[in-house]
Amino acid sequence: MELQLPKGMRDIHPEDKILRETITKELTKIFEVYGFNPLETPIVERFDVLSNKFGAGETSDAMRETFKLEDQGSRKLGLRFDLTVPLARYIAMNPNIKLPFKRYQIGEVFRDGPIKLGRYREFWQCDVDSVGSRNMLADAELVKLALDVFKKLKLNAHIEINNRKLLESLMLNAGVKKSKMQDAVIIIDKLQKIGLEGVTAELSKIFDESTIEGIVTILKIEGTPQQIFDQLEPMIKGADGREGIEELKKIFTYFNKKQKEMIKLNLSLARGFRYYTGTIFEGFLNDSQVTSSICGGGRYDNMIADYAGSGEYPSVGISFGLDVIAEAIKIENPDQIKTKVKLYVIPIKTTKEVIQKATSESIKIIDKLRKENLPVDMDITSRAISKNLDYVDKLNIPYALIIGKKEINQHKYTLRNMKTGKEKLVSYEDLLRKLK
Amino acid sequence: MELQLPKGMRDIHPEDKILRETITKELTKIFEVYGFNPLETPIVERFDVLSNKFGAGETSDAMRETFKLEDQGSRKLGLRFDLTVPLARYIAMNPNIKLPFKRYQIGEVFRDGPIKLGRYREFWQCDVDSVGSRNMLADAELVKLALDVFKKLKLNAHIEINNRKLLESLMLNAGVKKSKMQDAVIIIDKLQKIGLEGVTAELSKIFDESTIEGIVTILKIEGTPQQIFDQLEPMIKGADGREGIEELKKIFTYFNKKQKEMIKLNLSLARGFRYYTGTIFEGFLNDSQVTSSICGGGRYDNMIADYAGSGEYPSVGISFGLDVIAEAIKIENPDQIKTKVKLYVIPIKTTKEVIQKATSESIKIIDKLRKENLPVDMDITSRAISKNLDYVDKLNIPYALIIGKKEINQHKYTLRNMKTGKEKLVSYEDLLRKLK
Repeated sequence: MELQLPKGMRDIHPEDKILRETITKELTKIFEVYGFNPLETPIVERFDVLSNKFGAGETSDAMRETFKLEDQGSRKLGLRFDLTVPLARYIAMNPNIKLPFKRYQIGEVFRDGPIKLGRYREFWQCDVDSVGSRNMLADAELVKLALDVFKKLKLNAHIEINNRKLLESLMLNAGVKKSKMQDAVIIIDKLQKIGLEGVTAELSKIFDESTIEGIVTILKIEGTPQQIFDQLEPMIKGADGREGIEELKKIFTYFNKKQKEMIKLNLSLARGFRYYTGTIFEGFLNDSQVTSSICGGGRYDNMIADYAGSGEYPSVGISFGLDVIAEAIKIENPDQIKTKVKLYVIPIKTTKEVIQKATSESIKIIDKLRKENLPVDMDITSRAISKNLDYVDKLNIPYALIIGKKEINQHKYTLRNMKTGKEKLVSYEDLLRKLK
Repeated sequence: MELQLPKGMRDIHPEDKILRETITKELTKIFEVYGFNPLETPIVERFDVLSNKFGAGETSDAMRETFKLEDQGSRKLGLRFDLTVPLARYIAMNPNIKLPFKRYQIGEVFRDGPIKLGRYREFWQCDVDSVGSRNMLADAELVKLALDVFKKLKLNAHIEINNRKLLESLMLNAGVKKSKMQDAVIIIDKLQKIGLEGVTAELSKIFDESTIEGIVTILKIEGTPQQIFDQLEPMIKGADGREGIEELKKIFTYFNKKQKEMIKLNLSLARGFRYYTGTIFEGFLNDSQVTSSICGGGRYDNMIADYAGSGEYPSVGISFGLDVIAEAIKIENPDQIKTKVKLYVIPIKTTKEVIQKATSESIKIIDKLRKENLPVDMDITSRAISKNLDYVDKLNIPYALIIGKKEINQHKYTLRNMKTGKEKLVSYEDLLRKLK
């Protein structure tokens, strides 16, 4: 029998998992500093929850790509395709929850879709959502949080921001009918991928020439936020457009100068999901070969209430892509650590007596170092020192400690720096100082 | 539409998730101190991998209870029911891996089985395995690791230890045929649950009276390890029994006096899985209403090689149950923290001017405290101070900071201790000192 992984799925080897753990640990810390608490929902949801029309919608990619299963009672279930639908279900099922409810969730999601380079059928999302406030402070907070993530993970990146109310109002003015609005949004969302020419071509399948011209005029507006606001003012018609631009202006009052340098108002930012109702944002790396967004989100004021069937749950959220962030960090720093182990203790194997003494001395040292919370390991094979040093080298462990008869008698041990190959005799205290 | 969770699954609310995160963080730290590195395998595996006869086996509970699914290409898949089978598959697919391979994995597993109190269809396992060494040091290391887990999590618990080779040899002597050995092991494994009478009753369905008498004699042997070894010596026949007792003796030489006090040699410990070949161990709480084991594992020297079809992969592993550990901690300390937030800033809402000034002062303070990595939050609703204090109280946030006109003018803010209800004026520096 040939052993295989499911198509489109993969193992995360220790060296890659170490990097991911470092990233999620940093994310978690920042999420908590911003007042978000962790929530866990099951990986399996009822199919009717996942296919609810207020979520991704029955005809969306996410829904078409849902892994379906049944339990032994023939209940129809599915694997979650995002963390937003489970959040909506959670809020709807817990109506007494205190609002604002600020939660984060980090976990696997599944899409049974086509496989491309870097696209998998099981992948991680790291979601942060504020439920229960219409205040633009909530939106601004998530943008600040994202900027903090970039800083802490040393990612050279920026945030692009827009507003759906504004965008849709502008498109309405340009001649896009309400019934075709979602089609237009989905096409515009592809701008970064297929360029203005590609977008125009796709638009021409649905819209007439003057409408397309109107849309392209909007997409071409560029400049500082103030410059863009000035250009837009005469174009704004109707309450929605007015509300959209005022929301954007309000958000920008919450950023300081340094933050503003990393935030770009981009009128062509659309975000595909139907459920966004206001602010939308997306984060991108600067001058990187990784061009996909590293985070994205926005305000969805109706979705949860639609799920719940009653109540008001204005919400805003952001989602970080663990895969793309890990990839970006690896491109910048290809030499990631391969192991957490800092020292490998090798008892020398000559005579039976030496083996026994060296082993028991090694155990004593290992136990003491572990009590100091130092990640250390020791040889438990019967192989010779050269093979052991080869293992230490392959695993990129920085130090080896060699213990033989001479070392035991002197109460000093041979410490080998694996990078330089230099060896010196050290006492236990020297060793402890070195590793701490 | 009524929203529901899948049968046997649940949400982990923030206050419970906070506790679980604390536990897994502590586990991770200890696993790494003992030289184990993280690995991630997908939640979905190919069905033929899960049903492989060298794993749990086609007729086992785990296999019968596997959630089955298919991808759009009609490939047969399943949700993993443990983390050991995926490890075996991983090793088999990566034959060039450096041995010993020491990995830990923390993640969800799934069993589509009957629902009981405290038993779910989706639950977490925290597994630690050493692949590639027959040395009893590897077994001893996992026992020490478990004792460290108990200590760090303040669990009053102990480890029971036995050896399958020894147990099976003793049973062979008692008259159990090789073909019936697994049946006997599964029945003995129930001793803690159904008592000696229950075990005798179940044994009598398969074995004759003298065999049962022989088995019961073994199960009744008690005492210190040395006392047990002394009683066993005259009973040992055959190479396997000899090897088993020598392995046990060897392991005990690696423990210090304090460790030995927390380790009990228990000849009736059996562990249900067929694949164990040597040392087996299980951890239990002392004097607790939680009677199920909190961790368990053992040596399986053949399983991975059987999967791989070649090579030698002697292994030993231990698995911690997150649910039962969290439950035990909650019983001991029912007042777990409900939020990570330490301070909630409330701008006072009187006139429009005060609202604006208080809000921008609050943002300034929040931004500064977050820069210090302090988990703090602020009011972003339009509600009055009494409702805000109620929210802070319900969420168990320890401090509220109230900012109004008076406070802004004085550059001092009203800090309210939510437990005592006492308020005092503090400067930003006072506040920072208090929270750090």
